[in-house]
Amino acid sequence: MDKRRVLSLRHVLMLSLALNVGLILRLGYVGENWRAEQSVHGLCLEEKQYRNIEASMVDCDQKVAHVSKTKLVETTTWSTSTAHKEVEDGGGRVINLDHGDPTMYESFWQQMGDRTTVVISGWQYISYFSDVTKLCWFLEPEFARAVIRLHKLVGNAITEGHHIVVGTGSTQLFQAALYALCPPNASEPMSVVSAAPFYSSYPLMTDFLESGLYKWAGDAHKFSKNRPYIELVTSPNNPDGSTRQAVVNRNQGILVHDLAYYWPQYTPISFPADHDLMLFTVSKSTGHAGTRIGWALVKDQEVARKMTKFIELNTIGVSKDSQLRAAKILQAVGDSCDPVGSDEEVQPFFDYSYILMEKRWKQLRAAVKNSRLFSLPDFPTAFCNFSGCSFEPQPAFAWLKCEGEIEDCESFLRGHKILTRGGKHFGVCPKYVRISMLEREKNFDLFTQRLSTIQSW
Amino acid sequence: MDKRRVLSLRHVLMLSLALNVGLILRLGYVGENWRAEQSVHGLCLEEKQYRNIEASMVDCDQKVAHVSKTKLVETTTWSTSTAHKEVEDGGGRVINLDHGDPTMYESFWQQMGDRTTVVISGWQYISYFSDVTKLCWFLEPEFARAVIRLHKLVGNAITEGHHIVVGTGSTQLFQAALYALCPPNASEPMSVVSAAPFYSSYPLMTDFLESGLYKWAGDAHKFSKNRPYIELVTSPNNPDGSTRQAVVNRNQGILVHDLAYYWPQYTPISFPADHDLMLFTVSKSTGHAGTRIGWALVKDQEVARKMTKFIELNTIGVSKDSQLRAAKILQAVGDSCDPVGSDEEVQPFFDYSYILMEKRWKQLRAAVKNSRLFSLPDFPTAFCNFSGCSFEPQPAFAWLKCEGEIEDCESFLRGHKILTRGGKHFGVCPKYVRISMLEREKNFDLFTQRLSTIQSW
Repeated sequence: MDKRRVLSLRHVLMLSLALNVGLILRLGYVGENWRAEQSVHGLCLEEKQYRNIEASMVDCDQKVAHVSKTKLVETTTWSTSTAHKEVEDGGGRVINLDHGDPTMYESFWQQMGDRTTVVISGWQYISYFSDVTKLCWFLEPEFARAVIRLHKLVGNAITEGHHIVVGTGSTQLFQAALYALCPPNASEPMSVVSAAPFYSSYPLMTDFLESGLYKWAGDAHKFSKNRPYIELVTSPNNPDGSTRQAVVNRNQGILVHDLAYYWPQYTPISFPADHDLMLFTVSKSTGHAGTRIGWALVKDQEVARKMTKFIELNTIGVSKDSQLRAAKILQAVGDSCDPVGSDEEVQPFFDYSYILMEKRWKQLRAAVKNSRLFSLPDFPTAFCNFSGCSFEPQPAFAWLKCEGEIEDCESFLRGHKILTRGGKHFGVCPKYVRISMLEREKNFDLFTQRLSTIQSW
Repeated sequence: MDKRRVLSLRHVLMLSLALNVGLILRLGYVGENWRAEQSVHGLCLEEKQYRNIEASMVDCDQKVAHVSKTKLVETTTWSTSTAHKEVEDGGGRVINLDHGDPTMYESFWQQMGDRTTVVISGWQYISYFSDVTKLCWFLEPEFARAVIRLHKLVGNAITEGHHIVVGTGSTQLFQAALYALCPPNASEPMSVVSAAPFYSSYPLMTDFLESGLYKWAGDAHKFSKNRPYIELVTSPNNPDGSTRQAVVNRNQGILVHDLAYYWPQYTPISFPADHDLMLFTVSKSTGHAGTRIGWALVKDQEVARKMTKFIELNTIGVSKDSQLRAAKILQAVGDSCDPVGSDEEVQPFFDYSYILMEKRWKQLRAAVKNSRLFSLPDFPTAFCNFSGCSFEPQPAFAWLKCEGEIEDCESFLRGHKILTRGGKHFGVCPKYVRISMLEREKNFDLFTQRLSTIQSW
């Protein structure tokens, strides 16, 4: 082992302390001192006493070193943007946190330079077909390999015994799954349910074409029909970040697991998921929403075949350009966290994203505490097999509740020029809103700053 | 004007003659002499007597010179592939011409080298959004500009007064149009019709989700309901290449014009189309089927808005990577045929593709004549405003009829290991099949060679 990379426990703790001090100074404008919280690195070290302490030191050292570097960049940016922000915020600029547009990862990919640049010649990938011998004939082998490798490295899903179906985002795969799981010419459409609060697009995507195959049937907790149904299990859940399991648990139930957020920057990876039908997407794992690529892991061959048929009829396959780009991105993420032969100059993607999410959650909780008008859910700490650390989930969305007399939280925040998505879209009361945690740094800072100053309704 | 590029009429006619002789020699293996046909260049010269003769000489000279160069490449390839072919054909290799996979353009794009190479960094185009101020918020401005410019140069569609909606191929836009044009919660689904023979995917795309909004109602010629309907007008038509107009022409009719093949390599551009809703796609215009990009030109703002909504619900927008690639390709096609500032080293794309289609149609007609078991439709010659030439349509698909006692042409050809798509898929009798004219050179040669030798049933 390279001795230069092995720091003593004392060094790590000093750096960790420096980081926490940096965070306190950095977030000083919120107007409240941070409660002394043990950083993930501290926890990580505790957990890693059960592991090879020397190896874990390298990991934690690297994390801290990278964070220090990131902090430097951010502080510079922040200095500039603070001045800019003060002017802008004086004018009451609208902050849009309605959508989950994952632009916060942009700066990581900028740091990666040419490593993830995709180059495609005009004559390449012209055909509709990727591999006609395969069930999913439009799936690029390179993309499939990158998916399998990354799941293995992260340990969040079992790919063995599953067919991979690529889709134009997991949105298309969701619809493909409904098509595949519902028999044609049934006497009535199949009921589709999910426990409230559920992803606001589920009812819209299910019902917009008034399909005879399936129909949205609302909150899974209230489902009482004694007929076949599909239950959508989103874990971690969008919008509230909770870890979920099926709630109906009746005969004739078919489960679709939406695991868009089951990645180690958002939640501890407790086990490799091995469900019948699992959905993933690059938009939330790596932040490439504009690329429109998702994938399904499907046990049943006939279901995978029908999902492929849906995509054939809906869009005649999936863009090769995007699959190649997604493959390159997933390979880079894999390389950055692969202990075998990883590029030492590259910061592990999940370290970067984990630390940024952790920082943002701290920042938001401080703002909420300062304001006293809102509350946020608490999450239990759990051990993450991927990072070897215990931590609380730090979801991609914050599920904010307006306390006291504020009944319509979305309208209330809109009055403060903060756009969010209200509870009624998610099947619950309007005291809740969903807030994207994935915005660009400047907007997120502006948001927490403004939120912390809202003192009365 | 560069004098080196101006050849006399005598030179052009000599080259044209040489080309025709070349074609006869090239297609000698078909076993039949070609009937003496006036080449497009001859016709072109006649037409251009009404134009600036000197300028037209440059065009025609360039075409011939390029064809000569192309011929050289093809002859070399052909020599190699003939030997290969004889072995392969001896073994009775299956030739799949069922799909319209436009791989024939691959060699053109290879010749273009780096001019159409797209390079995208990992941090670019991460967001879902392209321009939130625009009706179609996921439309890349660069792609929109390329579309407008190319339509202007080719003169095949009016873009002024139309909104551009980008889609994951025109297949998705077709479904978006149905969604946009059918009122929700109607007492019964809207009828969707098209004159037979119609594109085989229309019924499937319309009915696969058993939508309550719309329903396939078959051949437009047989439509008799006195209720609102949507008529799909495909011109040039897939599968038979005919030029089309609406046939129902009743009140309460809404037209969708599928103009995927209204490009000058397939048909004379007689006028710039100016319909309410027109669909186009890169897969058939430039051959980039794997990129999955199409566009709609839509007059009515509300229809454009609802189409955008469909794409939002179906796939949350359209891949940015593919839009950028498509923009680059369309720009290159535009550059290659833009009289202002075009790159002299670049062969105009529509010259290349026109000449290749012309050659293939001659080759196919010779094979059909040799066999005597089949027939092909004839097309009237028309003047093309784009090329300044008169020519017969040379469609992307051949609509082949089995003559005599052969009732099921698809099965008959399958017996000869030629896969095609039978008439019943297009709403007509099985004596017809659709054959892709867009295959790679080797497969197309193998096909015409084999077809010409089929002498009896």
